Amino acid sequence: MTDAVHPRILKALRAEVSPFLAMDVMAAARDRLEAGGRVMRMEIGEPGFPPPRLAVEAAQRMLAEGGTIGYTDALGLPQLRRRIARHYKDAYGLTVAPSRVAVTIGSSGGFILLFQALFDPGDRVAITMPAYPPYRNTLKALGITPVEIPTRESTRWALTAEQVEEEHAREPLKGVLVMSPGNPTGTVIDAATFRPLAETCRRLGIHLISDEIYHGLTYDGVTAQTALAFSDEAMVVNSFSKYYGMTGWRIGWLILPEDLVRPIERLAQNFFISAPMLSQVAALAAFDATDELEERRAAYARNRARLIDALPAMGLDHFAPPDGAFYLYCDVGRLTNDSLAFARAMLAETGVAATPGVDFDPQQGGRYLRFSFAGAEADVEDAITTLGAWLKQR
Amino acid sequence: MTDAVHPRILKALRAEVSPFLAMDVMAAARDRLEAGGRVMRMEIGEPGFPPPRLAVEAAQRMLAEGGTIGYTDALGLPQLRRRIARHYKDAYGLTVAPSRVAVTIGSSGGFILLFQALFDPGDRVAITMPAYPPYRNTLKALGITPVEIPTRESTRWALTAEQVEEEHAREPLKGVLVMSPGNPTGTVIDAATFRPLAETCRRLGIHLISDEIYHGLTYDGVTAQTALAFSDEAMVVNSFSKYYGMTGWRIGWLILPEDLVRPIERLAQNFFISAPMLSQVAALAAFDATDELEERRAAYARNRARLIDALPAMGLDHFAPPDGAFYLYCDVGRLTNDSLAFARAMLAETGVAATPGVDFDPQQGGRYLRFSFAGAEADVEDAITTLGAWLKQR
Repeated sequence: MTDAVHPRILKALRAEVSPFLAMDVMAAARDRLEAGGRVMRMEIGEPGFPPPRLAVEAAQRMLAEGGTIGYTDALGLPQLRRRIARHYKDAYGLTVAPSRVAVTIGSSGGFILLFQALFDPGDRVAITMPAYPPYRNTLKALGITPVEIPTRESTRWALTAEQVEEEHAREPLKGVLVMSPGNPTGTVIDAATFRPLAETCRRLGIHLISDEIYHGLTYDGVTAQTALAFSDEAMVVNSFSKYYGMTGWRIGWLILPEDLVRPIERLAQNFFISAPMLSQVAALAAFDATDELEERRAAYARNRARLIDALPAMGLDHFAPPDGAFYLYCDVGRLTNDSLAFARAMLAETGVAATPGVDFDPQQGGRYLRFSFAGAEADVEDAITTLGAWLKQR
Repeated sequence: MTDAVHPRILKALRAEVSPFLAMDVMAAARDRLEAGGRVMRMEIGEPGFPPPRLAVEAAQRMLAEGGTIGYTDALGLPQLRRRIARHYKDAYGLTVAPSRVAVTIGSSGGFILLFQALFDPGDRVAITMPAYPPYRNTLKALGITPVEIPTRESTRWALTAEQVEEEHAREPLKGVLVMSPGNPTGTVIDAATFRPLAETCRRLGIHLISDEIYHGLTYDGVTAQTALAFSDEAMVVNSFSKYYGMTGWRIGWLILPEDLVRPIERLAQNFFISAPMLSQVAALAAFDATDELEERRAAYARNRARLIDALPAMGLDHFAPPDGAFYLYCDVGRLTNDSLAFARAMLAETGVAATPGVDFDPQQGGRYLRFSFAGAEADVEDAITTLGAWLKQR
């Protein structure tokens, strides 16, 4: 079985997906930790907390009961679908039928189902630039064309109805995908921007997908709006990973228009069978963990306040204060136009890990770094001190 | 927001995926159970046992420790990748580098990654008919053409090198996907058939994907061969769902040729981030649960023996005794050529749930039923009695 006998494996063209560089920075940070080094982890995209106590207890009860842990309905346990529906009444005052809820394997699983169900190869879907990198990469891998529309710090990184209308006039769009609070920017789309965006999408027959994974994590009295407040036809993607602190459980959900439920169910049956059952049971309990989750949000808020205070003092004063999520997206263009090399040097020389902007914005990302404040408060403090000293020397 | 203002949502063409009918039968059985009815569950595709004790204990330990349960590396926890690699030495005497192991979200997640990485839209991939329905549905949804090659009970349902060569000559194939032990047939591909099949694929430059999810579950001294014994270039799909009894944990793995590892890692980063962490920790422990798992295999073997004995006595004598898995695929063509209607009537009139063959074989499946023997021994006994009486009346 030598290469002479058989040609090297020819992979599919669409196998050439871009890496998600944030994960490579995570890996470099982990290598440093494993080698005994100190890392101040401001690159992470997940809460630095254990899962909520009530979620853990629910999982423990299920394990102790000793029953089977099997497949569930493809759209999820009925009680979890009902509880998610109720959350829309509690959190937003909106009525959502449980039948419109699909429980997914993280928001990632939800995106794959939605992209498959809504778009055919060659369809054009608008996303922002910067944006969460898997949007672009996953759309491309599925043969869909991501149309990256630049957004700017000066307009708080929002995609506007006018931009969508203009792009659609140039060449029709089949979908628009927005995220609020945003990753990497942390900014929230306000109602005055979101409402006309949703109405424009409806009028033009463009599918509006709203990634609401950072809902619940907002600061300084800001509240994030759900797209469902502006359009019954919007598709909402959400997850237990961020506010609920359950990344590793791989559990999320979709809110769908009624006529999309059955197509998504069929796809989910074939693609995934079901989301993990234990995670579904734990997630159900997480809705009751508000006290604990609000304490965590307060810790993120303290980290956020420290960064907003300290970064300008060290010369990093170009950023929009994040309304939500746990990221601060900082223009470091005075220091570098190669944020990947800069992030590597910073990690190697200071132990502070941050995510280079090139992941999020292929055009302008070379002058941006994303600092996460989801980690320990001690890490944020030490990062501020260390980074301040390092930047003075440069 | 009325339909008059906005056209109904137009879904993508590829949203029109076939349902996985087995899951619809499961749902009908569940409805009957919830209404207080008795169901003898011979439709299920998962073990009727709780997870292995050691796996549960490992999960319990992790939950009790109270640490974060977060994302892992996209290809899985290093210790689990190493343990899976070692399994190939223990079970098959083969050396597999841990770097070639990708931990996936069930075998389902593995298939999506493989199909994406190996095939471009329009590529032709041979599968058997009958076969596990999501093969056909998922390939189609991803724009790949499933080429369904009929296999027959008389040749123990095996796809042969000759069939592949013939089909490839007609129009080139990019891939071949086989499963042994098979679902729905339970038959094992013997070495005399598997070796030339693997060699033909290598010679013709066709990717060979081997679904080995039912490995470990074989009977009467039969052993299933891994494709890796015949080709270093085969792609192996496996999972903790069947032998290890961990369906609801959504955890599986791939063994990849070295040069496919990085493309799969990039796809996995973007598509899934990682498999559930708690499931990975539990799966690691499941490798040590051999005593318990062998007891379960003995229970399946008893169920299997009862069916092989009892079915012919009630006039159902057309089947190849399954070598493995936990299915018996029975020709009921003397009774019906509409197995879906037959399965529905059988469930309604006797409480015995079985899966209609149309799911597995759109051409001949109307005359087949799949009986699962993964359930309780009491269910199998009662099903035999009830079904015998019912068939006598027909």
